[in-house]
Amino acid sequence: MNLRIPGPTPLPPDVLAAMSQQMIDHRGPEFEAMMGEVTVGLKTFFETQHDLLILTASGTGGLEAAIVNTLSPGDRVLAVSVGVFGNRFAEIAAAYGASVTKLSYPMGQAADPDEVAAKIAQEGPFAAVLFTHNETSTGVSNVAEALCRAIRSAAPESLILVDAISSVPAIRLQTDAWGCDVVVAGSQKAWMAPPGASFVSMSPRAWEAYEHARMPRFYFDLGQAKKYADQRQTPATPAMSVFFALRASLNKLAAEGPEAVWARHEHLGAYCRQGVLDLGLGLFAAEGHRSNTVTAISLTPGQSAAKILAALRERYDIIGGATRAPGVEMIRLAHMGYVSEADLDAVFVALRELIA
Amino acid sequence: MNLRIPGPTPLPPDVLAAMSQQMIDHRGPEFEAMMGEVTVGLKTFFETQHDLLILTASGTGGLEAAIVNTLSPGDRVLAVSVGVFGNRFAEIAAAYGASVTKLSYPMGQAADPDEVAAKIAQEGPFAAVLFTHNETSTGVSNVAEALCRAIRSAAPESLILVDAISSVPAIRLQTDAWGCDVVVAGSQKAWMAPPGASFVSMSPRAWEAYEHARMPRFYFDLGQAKKYADQRQTPATPAMSVFFALRASLNKLAAEGPEAVWARHEHLGAYCRQGVLDLGLGLFAAEGHRSNTVTAISLTPGQSAAKILAALRERYDIIGGATRAPGVEMIRLAHMGYVSEADLDAVFVALRELIA
Repeated sequence: MNLRIPGPTPLPPDVLAAMSQQMIDHRGPEFEAMMGEVTVGLKTFFETQHDLLILTASGTGGLEAAIVNTLSPGDRVLAVSVGVFGNRFAEIAAAYGASVTKLSYPMGQAADPDEVAAKIAQEGPFAAVLFTHNETSTGVSNVAEALCRAIRSAAPESLILVDAISSVPAIRLQTDAWGCDVVVAGSQKAWMAPPGASFVSMSPRAWEAYEHARMPRFYFDLGQAKKYADQRQTPATPAMSVFFALRASLNKLAAEGPEAVWARHEHLGAYCRQGVLDLGLGLFAAEGHRSNTVTAISLTPGQSAAKILAALRERYDIIGGATRAPGVEMIRLAHMGYVSEADLDAVFVALRELIA
Repeated sequence: MNLRIPGPTPLPPDVLAAMSQQMIDHRGPEFEAMMGEVTVGLKTFFETQHDLLILTASGTGGLEAAIVNTLSPGDRVLAVSVGVFGNRFAEIAAAYGASVTKLSYPMGQAADPDEVAAKIAQEGPFAAVLFTHNETSTGVSNVAEALCRAIRSAAPESLILVDAISSVPAIRLQTDAWGCDVVVAGSQKAWMAPPGASFVSMSPRAWEAYEHARMPRFYFDLGQAKKYADQRQTPATPAMSVFFALRASLNKLAAEGPEAVWARHEHLGAYCRQGVLDLGLGLFAAEGHRSNTVTAISLTPGQSAAKILAALRERYDIIGGATRAPGVEMIRLAHMGYVSEADLDAVFVALRELIA
């Protein structure tokens, strides 16, 4: 199976093998050593010196943790959305009683830092500004550094909460240097690990907000998570097999080195985009904002995404991502984590046959 | 390693091997088939014809789901607690704004159904009554059937929310027949699967409550979970490797059959208790309420639980559970899931040498 959806992503053989290790005590020295090792590995790619908590949950659980640990009901929040996952981040804030102002962009467009700053100037202050670093529903990457600078400049006191689920570690995000207060990632993306763990960084400013944040929380209480993390444990029983996999995959990422990991994904992104253009197909994301982890392919009139995806699955054992933009004929191809040019070539060969 | 803590529990070799399968599409037919198979397997042991949702979370996440999907802030809740996990269930309800009345029993004692009924008669009505079926902190099993009957008789309209994390599938709980509205279990217990998934049943009465329950929820929204479960999917990316393991372990449990699984745990419980008594040590739980999944051993004056646990670990590679009852010298031994008499014999041999 050539699994090209944006998560779960295929795992390297040694990561798969690592999951067959027998269970260990989550309050014992072996786990504590692993938790320490994994946390260091994650922080390298988060580029943070601050706290990094590991939750047994999907990425959505990590987004919920970002919200409920820093905000109170009634807090004004600016949610910058460029697609499905930006909307989800906003919905979580609203579900917990935040007063959400949306700044939404058409599918395929990236957020404009100047417009974000203007929105803050006109309608602020906001307790927090949320945005998605890389939007898998449209294959759009926001320019996180510029967004952070614009937000910090317009709203020195606002928290910056970033959904980096499909970016870090493939696309660089400098958590501390860019002033991100909470950054969320998920194990099943470019980390080359299975789904089941979400990672959440907390800046000192985020911890200050935590002290007076009154949204209810228990399972996702990051104060509890930190209390245990300081002992290299977790409050509840962790997804042990996901930790085994993560330790193996982070060792591989560390051996490769961050610069090489980012460069590899830049190359894969460019390679995928060129392959799509060579087929005469379109790129859905606006130029200059095309993701290096997932490419959204625009089909030409008369082509059916559903039919092509079904044929890819049935005839070629290739699993692409369906459209997440209603009314748009789109196929999404992920190229993050354990993926090669050959995996993408196989998709292009199949697509060429199908659309000929 | 002879892992005798009450979760994570050791996994059979074929369950471990199942986790090395490559990732698949969580929106594709292979996952949908697995989700259907796993749900049927779980429902057999929950003894429910109603909905059974699978969450990517530890058991504590499942407890939170039980609360936030059925209750509103200010709702009066009776929390029957016989230990640490009963207290946790109550804390979750309080964290989300329920008005919690506690009925607490001394560590080692079980809940008295008549007292629960009397409490409801005197201080009710309560929107929900919570209790723990099997309390791992003390090795106490509550008589769930009698508790459910007492609650239902005293409070026909109350919801009954049951923490069955360390009971089902080892200790029988008849979800539908006993009128349990929400029952929560966790993958890492007698299911012989790794941590990372929690299972939550919902009765029709629980769904009625869901319609007007106003506690905030997003990740643990069971209405969303049901909407996707009806398509054999999950709202967010599921812990795929845990599903692979669960499918394998549920096949084993199905092959053994529920009656045999319950009988096996009855036997292991009795075997462990006899072994403890043969060593001249005590049983912490009150007679008639001793758990068939975990035994709490009372040490005699002068014996240090911490020292014995350290020696078990260092000299025998046996990992026992520490005390969860402050001031009590106690060792806890789990005997649920993939465990044999020989595993327990090894502990008794070691304990005999250490306490001689």
